[in-house]
Amino acid sequence: MIKKVIDRFGRLDILINNIERGGWPIVHGPYDQKQWDLEMETTLRAKRWVFEAALPHLKTAGDGVVINFSSIAAIVGRSGPVSLIFNDGYAAAQRGISLLTETWARIGAPEVRVNEIMLGLFQTRHAEETRGWSLLTATQKKALKAHTLLSRTGTIEDVVKAVLYIIKDAEFMTGSVLRLDGGYILGGEKADKIPEGIL
Amino acid sequence: MIKKVIDRFGRLDILINNIERGGWPIVHGPYDQKQWDLEMETTLRAKRWVFEAALPHLKTAGDGVVINFSSIAAIVGRSGPVSLIFNDGYAAAQRGISLLTETWARIGAPEVRVNEIMLGLFQTRHAEETRGWSLLTATQKKALKAHTLLSRTGTIEDVVKAVLYIIKDAEFMTGSVLRLDGGYILGGEKADKIPEGIL
Amino acid sequence: MIKKVIDRFGRLDILINNIERGGWPIVHGPYDQKQWDLEMETTLRAKRWVFEAALPHLKTAGDGVVINFSSIAAIVGRSGPVSLIFNDGYAAAQRGISLLTETWARIGAPEVRVNEIMLGLFQTRHAEETRGWSLLTATQKKALKAHTLLSRTGTIEDVVKAVLYIIKDAEFMTGSVLRLDGGYILGGEKADKIPEGIL
Amino acid sequence: MIKKVIDRFGRLDILINNIERGGWPIVHGPYDQKQWDLEMETTLRAKRWVFEAALPHLKTAGDGVVINFSSIAAIVGRSGPVSLIFNDGYAAAQRGISLLTETWARIGAPEVRVNEIMLGLFQTRHAEETRGWSLLTATQKKALKAHTLLSRTGTIEDVVKAVLYIIKDAEFMTGSVLRLDGGYILGGEKADKIPEGIL
Repeated sequence: MIKKVIDRFGRLDILINNIERGGWPIVHGPYDQKQWDLEMETTLRAKRWVFEAALPHLKTAGDGVVINFSSIAAIVGRSGPVSLIFNDGYAAAQRGISLLTETWARIGAPEVRVNEIMLGLFQTRHAEETRGWSLLTATQKKALKAHTLLSRTGTIEDVVKAVLYIIKDAEFMTGSVLRLDGGYILGGEKADKIPEGIL
Repeated sequence: MIKKVIDRFGRLDILINNIERGGWPIVHGPYDQKQWDLEMETTLRAKRWVFEAALPHLKTAGDGVVINFSSIAAIVGRSGPVSLIFNDGYAAAQRGISLLTETWARIGAPEVRVNEIMLGLFQTRHAEETRGWSLLTATQKKALKAHTLLSRTGTIEDVVKAVLYIIKDAEFMTGSVLRLDGGYILGGEKADKIPEGIL
Repeated sequence: MIKKVIDRFGRLDILINNIERGGWPIVHGPYDQKQWDLEMETTLRAKRWVFEAALPHLKTAGDGVVINFSSIAAIVGRSGPVSLIFNDGYAAAQRGISLLTETWARIGAPEVRVNEIMLGLFQTRHAEETRGWSLLTATQKKALKAHTLLSRTGTIEDVVKAVLYIIKDAEFMTGSVLRLDGGYILGGEKADKIPEGIL
Repeated sequence: MIKKVIDRFGRLDILINNIERGGWPIVHGPYDQKQWDLEMETTLRAKRWVFEAALPHLKTAGDGVVINFSSIAAIVGRSGPVSLIFNDGYAAAQRGISLLTETWARIGAPEVRVNEIMLGLFQTRHAEETRGWSLLTATQKKALKAHTLLSRTGTIEDVVKAVLYIIKDAEFMTGSVLRLDGGYILGGEKADKIPEGIL
């Protein structure tokens, strides 16, 4: 794949490392080892070998950018309303991605910046335009949006803007994780109003 | 204080750094700056100056131990059922304690080990035997226990055992945080059973 | 302050919460309690009361944005080459900021987004255009840059771009920390080349 | 395996989940996919299926305990002196273990407590009594110990005591990570003495 890019364009400046295949509990049901392995092979292994093939070309480019995509499954795991979406192995692998982001930032510097965009529920990932989403009841969908502080799912534009920021404007950023989740990970519990007190 | 100990006992081997005064929203009501300052002065500043005074004596002892106490307010803040118990400044200060734990582990080594015990809801802290607890309704108390995976509050024995482990048996541990919370921070959201799937 | 803004402009859409005063060890020498208190009062307390005053207006605006500034002192503390720059209390307070960011994201939603920009060494903060920087030897300055994966300090443009991204383009981001440090926190230790192995 | 235990003893109270096989860079040299897969299959997958088989029996026991073992590779990755010991995939998998610990603490409660012991350099793991250690030069070994705040590697007794603490005394602990590393993760950078200052 990397070879094709180089053959055609002669150089490589940007690697969007977005390979994964996560099995939804509501789609795939109870885990089997094959499903687990598939998640590890895509989420972690494929990203790694693509990066290795791309790195020399990114170094040569002199101002290379790598963006790893990950999911908030890395933080919340199979818990609460996303229990229907995130599987245990998928979530464990997602948590592992940040280790790769950090290691690659070390290896790539100073010619190549490596950062991670951690996604919450997006129209084309974990939400509306996916097979699993259509299997959810209205109540389940509502719970997922209510859990997101901004009360909506993310759009493709939201992701595109984050990617453009990293590529064009974040010249001093490497090894960072930019979490773009509408506040999902914080939305499970509200900060109640402070009561009057007795003093 | 440290001087008194040295005058009386001639040496200092163990420092249990447990100073704090956290204002409960349900007790103290809306924050004022005085309450905020008091929390910072006890939770962070007092711990620091006690440590500074104790350090030379702990170094001399040759096998000194420091235990900082902190609260899971450091992680959850004012959210969910503990919104009635944890205030914002108290929680921010608690999060800052681990920075001190890490710095002091660096400064103290190799003669002095420094670790932190992070407490959840305990009978004598955040729970039963406190003034604030009696102000809670039965429903609120129930919500707090239900949020704890082990469905109960901690006991003094639980703390004592953790302290003894660190002092006597954790000779290779320094700079660590031992969280003792019955799983409170994980208990807000359950891991639902995996559904049957459609494949 | 907030009142003046409202009196003059009639509304408030954006709050850049950048108040702090960190004492550099190389400038201020050994800590005294006054210095410590000053750091707590600016870094944490002032941010909090400014936010409280601003929140109703930001809510009314309907699409408010808050950006808290913090420092990588929150992660690294007084360690390595920044031992000359970051003091213990300053670092502990910085670590506490993210707790405020999270709480405020909860309180502000859905009308107000609250995020944090965590800065590494910048020309106008922690680096060139500060009083403390001129006290450093050439060797110390070199060590600080070498510790940064991208081998330079950040510029005002780098910060401005991050601020603009959050205000204009990060509409699905709240409760996040955007770390902009040129990889300082990762740069202390290299990932060596993998050796040949014996198998 | 679990079946054998039940057949023989009739019950299962404790699961020490310590399966892994990490390839050392200095032993195995450059990564190939087979090595990578083997690490994922042992570190993550095997732990998961062993846990699944054990869980019903642990629930029945009524006071079950699970201890997952992980490595500080989860935090430091392939960086600094451990670059010779920790491989990238191994480290990413180690970081993923804590996700399993958290999920299992949720699933197991309240009958089963699940915690994690994160090991630094130990005589029988990552250090003296391993094949890889004998391949290190005296300088490399010295660098590894110097990086550990307590200036030594851990012993079997250190691990045994931690395990006993969790099993017998940590009755209020679940979902926690107990890091036992002699301060390795903090030891790469010292906290220098505070200079005199100019004020």
